[in-house]
Amino acid sequence: MRIEADFMRRVADAAAAQTLPRFRQAGLVTNKLAAGFDPVTEADREAELAIRSLIRDTFPDHGILGEEFGAENVGNRHVWVIDPIDGTRAFISGLPLWGTLVGLTDHGDAVAGMMSQPFTGELFWADDAASHYDGPGGARRLATRDTSSIADATMCTTTPALFTGALREAYDRLESSVRLARYGTDCYAYAMLAAGNIDLVVETGLQPYDIVALVPIIERAGGIITTWDGGPAEKAGDIVAAATPALHAAALEMLNR
Amino acid sequence: MRIEADFMRRVADAAAAQTLPRFRQAGLVTNKLAAGFDPVTEADREAELAIRSLIRDTFPDHGILGEEFGAENVGNRHVWVIDPIDGTRAFISGLPLWGTLVGLTDHGDAVAGMMSQPFTGELFWADDAASHYDGPGGARRLATRDTSSIADATMCTTTPALFTGALREAYDRLESSVRLARYGTDCYAYAMLAAGNIDLVVETGLQPYDIVALVPIIERAGGIITTWDGGPAEKAGDIVAAATPALHAAALEMLNR
Repeated sequence: MRIEADFMRRVADAAAAQTLPRFRQAGLVTNKLAAGFDPVTEADREAELAIRSLIRDTFPDHGILGEEFGAENVGNRHVWVIDPIDGTRAFISGLPLWGTLVGLTDHGDAVAGMMSQPFTGELFWADDAASHYDGPGGARRLATRDTSSIADATMCTTTPALFTGALREAYDRLESSVRLARYGTDCYAYAMLAAGNIDLVVETGLQPYDIVALVPIIERAGGIITTWDGGPAEKAGDIVAAATPALHAAALEMLNR
Repeated sequence: MRIEADFMRRVADAAAAQTLPRFRQAGLVTNKLAAGFDPVTEADREAELAIRSLIRDTFPDHGILGEEFGAENVGNRHVWVIDPIDGTRAFISGLPLWGTLVGLTDHGDAVAGMMSQPFTGELFWADDAASHYDGPGGARRLATRDTSSIADATMCTTTPALFTGALREAYDRLESSVRLARYGTDCYAYAMLAAGNIDLVVETGLQPYDIVALVPIIERAGGIITTWDGGPAEKAGDIVAAATPALHAAALEMLNR
């Protein structure tokens, strides 16, 4: 199924119209209980409603699974999977590393997806043929870089505090072996992996709406993304994304040692 | 001494002309030894040269201290302190949280400063009267928010791994008491503090060029920034910046307990 660039842009714009005006509304977030007004939750809900409306109008026989409003017609062959604001903690801290995630599955396999960051004006998206970027610096194809060894890799994770017990030991083993580790990245890390700026993303405890949109962006850029046990990333949970098959195999081996 | 907005913008533009074309040059960074070409170091050096040239032309009787090219006439009353790329690790990972820092001291006190992030098109700067923002969303004054309690605070640090021994124990004590901690932020965290998006920044091992430019931006926005022992932040080293005097006092007490 072919998804046009134009549809991805319309989805990104519809979400941005709800998220961007509520970004950096200083003071409102901390007072949400007192004021009865929570701009993050509002942005999340309004963006998802806008995205759902566009999908229903354009693809009436597709199902939808969203973080805020749950499942509708998810037994259908095609299902859209939505996280209106991935990286809520970045959003409420004013940091432009959150994104709107919208992915499409076909019989459960992720076949198209987009991540948009409206403050930086960036759109990362994939159709069945390639991964694409549009934003500052102009439009171009996305391609991972050719790092094959863990010792040469730059790795991102949102925070090591999310890994506990044996998962933390495995994560620390990998982190201590890479060239550079960066934190605080949420969905933005996968975009940087697809764009050839970093080499590894390792996360735990993800939901399908956190990852489905990103799978085609990584894969069509030349990368590999799976669960820690090598299963399909669409299952979510513990995820490893890598720039090359060799790096992915080395990371899986070290995590499961 | 009054520094005009126009001069801050010219400095930001001159630096951006050297840094931005070298940002996200995928593949070049990892191959720097093989290729003999390191775009980060080039960007750092060329940006500092451009900034030094502008300062010399505009303020010939001022001294300059820069990360890349050291000290010149730093015995003069006014000295400019430059970090052409603060957040080199963010820069080489494609993450738009690095910045160009240029501050002015008068007899050693920071009296004006700027942080520019050219990819997002943001400029944060302070003169002797106020702190200012220009970028997406338009120009405005910067003001910290009114958080006074650690339990309500959002805190940023670049990575907890930089704190060792007793410093790490102190940092962990504070982190476990705040509402939300974010990592990976470098100079961008201080800009978010001045803009009222976060409440605390805690760092260790800073050099004067990492912090001098940010001191007036924090202070003129209503915040407090000192070393962990309450001394002037211009000394660098271990730094605490807070949105309010009450929050700053509470953070110092907890770090030095």
